[in-house]
Amino acid sequence: MHERRSCSARRRGRDISRCPTWPRGPAARVPSPPVTWLRRLATWIGLGVLAIAALAIGAALARWAWVACCYAPVAPTHAAQKAAYLESLPRVDPARAPRFVVILFDDLGYGDLSVQGNRLIRTPAIDQLAAQGLRMTQFYAASPVCTPSRAALLSGRYPVRSHTHQHVFFAEELAAATLRKMLGAANELPRDEILLPEALGAAGYATGLVGKWHLGGIPGHLPNDFGFGEYYGVLWSNDMQPLHVWRDRAIEIRDETPFSRFGYFDEDGERQPRGVDQRLLTRRYTEEAIAFLERHRDEPFFLLLSHTAPHVPHFPDPEHAGRSAGGPYGDLVEDLDRSTGAVLAALERLGLASTTLVVVTSDNGGDYEGSTGGLRGRKQDTYEGGMRVPMLVRWPERVEAGAVSDAMAMHTDLFPTLLALAGLPLPADRAIDGADLAPVWLRGAASPHERLFYFPTLGAEPEAVRDARFKYRRATGQELRSKPHLSDLALDAEAHNLAKRHPDDAARLAGALAEMARSVRENPRGWR
Amino acid sequence: MHERRSCSARRRGRDISRCPTWPRGPAARVPSPPVTWLRRLATWIGLGVLAIAALAIGAALARWAWVACCYAPVAPTHAAQKAAYLESLPRVDPARAPRFVVILFDDLGYGDLSVQGNRLIRTPAIDQLAAQGLRMTQFYAASPVCTPSRAALLSGRYPVRSHTHQHVFFAEELAAATLRKMLGAANELPRDEILLPEALGAAGYATGLVGKWHLGGIPGHLPNDFGFGEYYGVLWSNDMQPLHVWRDRAIEIRDETPFSRFGYFDEDGERQPRGVDQRLLTRRYTEEAIAFLERHRDEPFFLLLSHTAPHVPHFPDPEHAGRSAGGPYGDLVEDLDRSTGAVLAALERLGLASTTLVVVTSDNGGDYEGSTGGLRGRKQDTYEGGMRVPMLVRWPERVEAGAVSDAMAMHTDLFPTLLALAGLPLPADRAIDGADLAPVWLRGAASPHERLFYFPTLGAEPEAVRDARFKYRRATGQELRSKPHLSDLALDAEAHNLAKRHPDDAARLAGALAEMARSVRENPRGWR
Repeated sequence: MHERRSCSARRRGRDISRCPTWPRGPAARVPSPPVTWLRRLATWIGLGVLAIAALAIGAALARWAWVACCYAPVAPTHAAQKAAYLESLPRVDPARAPRFVVILFDDLGYGDLSVQGNRLIRTPAIDQLAAQGLRMTQFYAASPVCTPSRAALLSGRYPVRSHTHQHVFFAEELAAATLRKMLGAANELPRDEILLPEALGAAGYATGLVGKWHLGGIPGHLPNDFGFGEYYGVLWSNDMQPLHVWRDRAIEIRDETPFSRFGYFDEDGERQPRGVDQRLLTRRYTEEAIAFLERHRDEPFFLLLSHTAPHVPHFPDPEHAGRSAGGPYGDLVEDLDRSTGAVLAALERLGLASTTLVVVTSDNGGDYEGSTGGLRGRKQDTYEGGMRVPMLVRWPERVEAGAVSDAMAMHTDLFPTLLALAGLPLPADRAIDGADLAPVWLRGAASPHERLFYFPTLGAEPEAVRDARFKYRRATGQELRSKPHLSDLALDAEAHNLAKRHPDDAARLAGALAEMARSVRENPRGWR
Repeated sequence: MHERRSCSARRRGRDISRCPTWPRGPAARVPSPPVTWLRRLATWIGLGVLAIAALAIGAALARWAWVACCYAPVAPTHAAQKAAYLESLPRVDPARAPRFVVILFDDLGYGDLSVQGNRLIRTPAIDQLAAQGLRMTQFYAASPVCTPSRAALLSGRYPVRSHTHQHVFFAEELAAATLRKMLGAANELPRDEILLPEALGAAGYATGLVGKWHLGGIPGHLPNDFGFGEYYGVLWSNDMQPLHVWRDRAIEIRDETPFSRFGYFDEDGERQPRGVDQRLLTRRYTEEAIAFLERHRDEPFFLLLSHTAPHVPHFPDPEHAGRSAGGPYGDLVEDLDRSTGAVLAALERLGLASTTLVVVTSDNGGDYEGSTGGLRGRKQDTYEGGMRVPMLVRWPERVEAGAVSDAMAMHTDLFPTLLALAGLPLPADRAIDGADLAPVWLRGAASPHERLFYFPTLGAEPEAVRDARFKYRRATGQELRSKPHLSDLALDAEAHNLAKRHPDDAARLAGALAEMARSVRENPRGWR
């Protein structure tokens, strides 16, 4: 073919001396049949397909090379400033510093506790904790999914600040982890972020994480690398492989489930976990949490008890399975309630109840299961059902028993609040999006926030903003004919669009949302 | 190329006498360069692409030819039996036969009336109607979208019976209409279906449709072809082109909006309607409805006042625009309330209030806007929020004032109930899925249904089933890790899956669902 084409060219041009001699007999009289044109068309189509494939493969290889050599969302200046900040922190007075226990549930919906109105699930221990402390009704996770929500809770910053704004992290063994990086998404928390346990630990607190981490799985990015003095738990969600149980930097119980690159665990199908008995996770976490409290009873401590339940798949503890009217999900939540009761009882037994601030909350709204308590949307949504979560605060003698606050607040507030309560300053080199809630907790003050932003599951820019009364959602494109939507949060579940009824409020909030979007485009990490 | 290939073949075989002489010089020594193989590969890939395209085009043409020549979901036997049934119906006694007014809203959510708990929208006339009659709290549309819901309401049969189980009908002018038929989906109601106005009309009722039809737009399938003696309204939804306003079989107001084959109307963007002033539709419908009542005051009548509001796009009447705290959507609903009040006032003025049964309901749950009243899901879903609708029944002296019933019922019940109240028999040649609600309405009886089925937006087989207590949804595949889901409807908004908590109930309802699925696979039209 090559031969013939170049000769055609030469015939059209000049030198044809070396061209093959074409017959002049009957074959020469046959006109070029249509099939020739078909084959030519096919050739060009095929070449196009091949060219596109080659381009795609080339681009992917280039991206991969870039990830391998240069991908690093860490800012060296701020890594140094982090070290200087931690170095500069004063030591707290062990006799006076408050102790902190934060209990975080995974995917527990706003309406999944009996104190939040659930009629199927009974949570007497948590209800009692609420009766002894403060219940916040307008409290938000900083993201409708796990990883960014946890990063925000521990750093006091919106997810985009810590480069965790693109869904969740995956184990390095999974193709998804490489793919994430090739797409420019982080798969572990940047080392320059300052987490609550790092600051508290630098000031003399004993720090421990029991349960789920979900902020990275490679050396240098494990819980112990981010200020947790002690760690016991799993690195990923309980539907993700591999589900090893770690103690500090070593695997204590290995997940032996046959590996599947895109697999997830399921309680019914074939993808059942085998290595780690998920049914016992809540029990193990509770024992470890209590052991931590016992070990550190004589010093200030910060314990994050980060449960894997009631995230899918649902494997209730066999001791209590089948008891809840809410099914396996209810069993899990009632087991979390027992766990919470056991932790509170341990604090009582250790004489730490009055000096320990206990927080109970969830990392985002309910998933397929789970009650939204009538709110619109679920996990993954920036509607209220995706991000509004239960928030209970108990601190005997300091926080009024039985109080209910409708002050709007967010997980990002825990970082500045706990540091303030410990008498520690905030880092100055970065935006801290949270605010100190101590006045709300201790004196029933109004919200310190004029506005809160709703960052989506995927994407650096906020999708919605609320103030004391209204919530404004920009057109997200998720729905056909998606429009900017203004809701009066006290009056309905984001049903009616009041953007035309209250155009000034809509414009004001749209402006605030656009300003925040501009700000994170220009300085996503919020460096100062 | 052809030439050369056949010669190669001949060289491999026998006769090569006519093959061109290939040079033996330097050109012959050049080995086949790699580019040849690339071109060969490209040729085969391109041929594959072309073959697939040819197959697809061929299949589409064959399907189109089939639609053009043979597509007819009508069963001739039952068309004849329909004629015989209508012929056989007795004439009602004009002095004693009850009058019927059915007011149907479009996409009004379960929680969109103040009597249903809405805190933004005020509907005093409808609230008063509810106070004068019966409010049903467990009442369903037969589909979560317009066309099948309306077919079921008028025929007393689940959507699949009337071949309306595949989303909604489109105007013939749209490519979507042809595409529907090519995919085997009806685009107009089969002529063999028996509609409520046909039966009532045959028995001597005056029958009228004011408002939206959405059951076909070609001659033989217009409202007047299905028993409505009088018609005024639009054939399609108010977001669909062309939005002519028809009077009987003729266009009275022509939609002059530049035509877009895939366009829809929008109140904000560029796709604004120009020919028909949507803002006046509710007002026009109301005037026409009252004129119908005046014309037929002295005889039994059946009036279906089928509003286009509050379906998107939202164009409130300029006389009342901006008054509702619920925004433009609220303006539309409050205008529907005024319309309902005007119809009730007309009945009063004409002395027909006590002899007229008035029904107020909606064709499916709220769309993007609209309140679900805390139910899960929206329009298009078989969750409760997609299909549970308001249902108010007023019949002074017959239906107890202020009554509330939690008897489960469905729009399919209107056909048998209204026929029973008129003293007319049901057709015997087909399944009527609805049941007579007269005992519920008149005597507060329990539901006549042991079970109700939820047919999806797209698809012939039911997706869920409920009995008095539980709802069972099969795994639908719409969500990742979708599972069969059992809910206790009185206790939560389909949040918690009780399939493992109540395995016998789950199995019982799964069996009923499978049996219904089998039945509609074998006899979708429900012929006897």
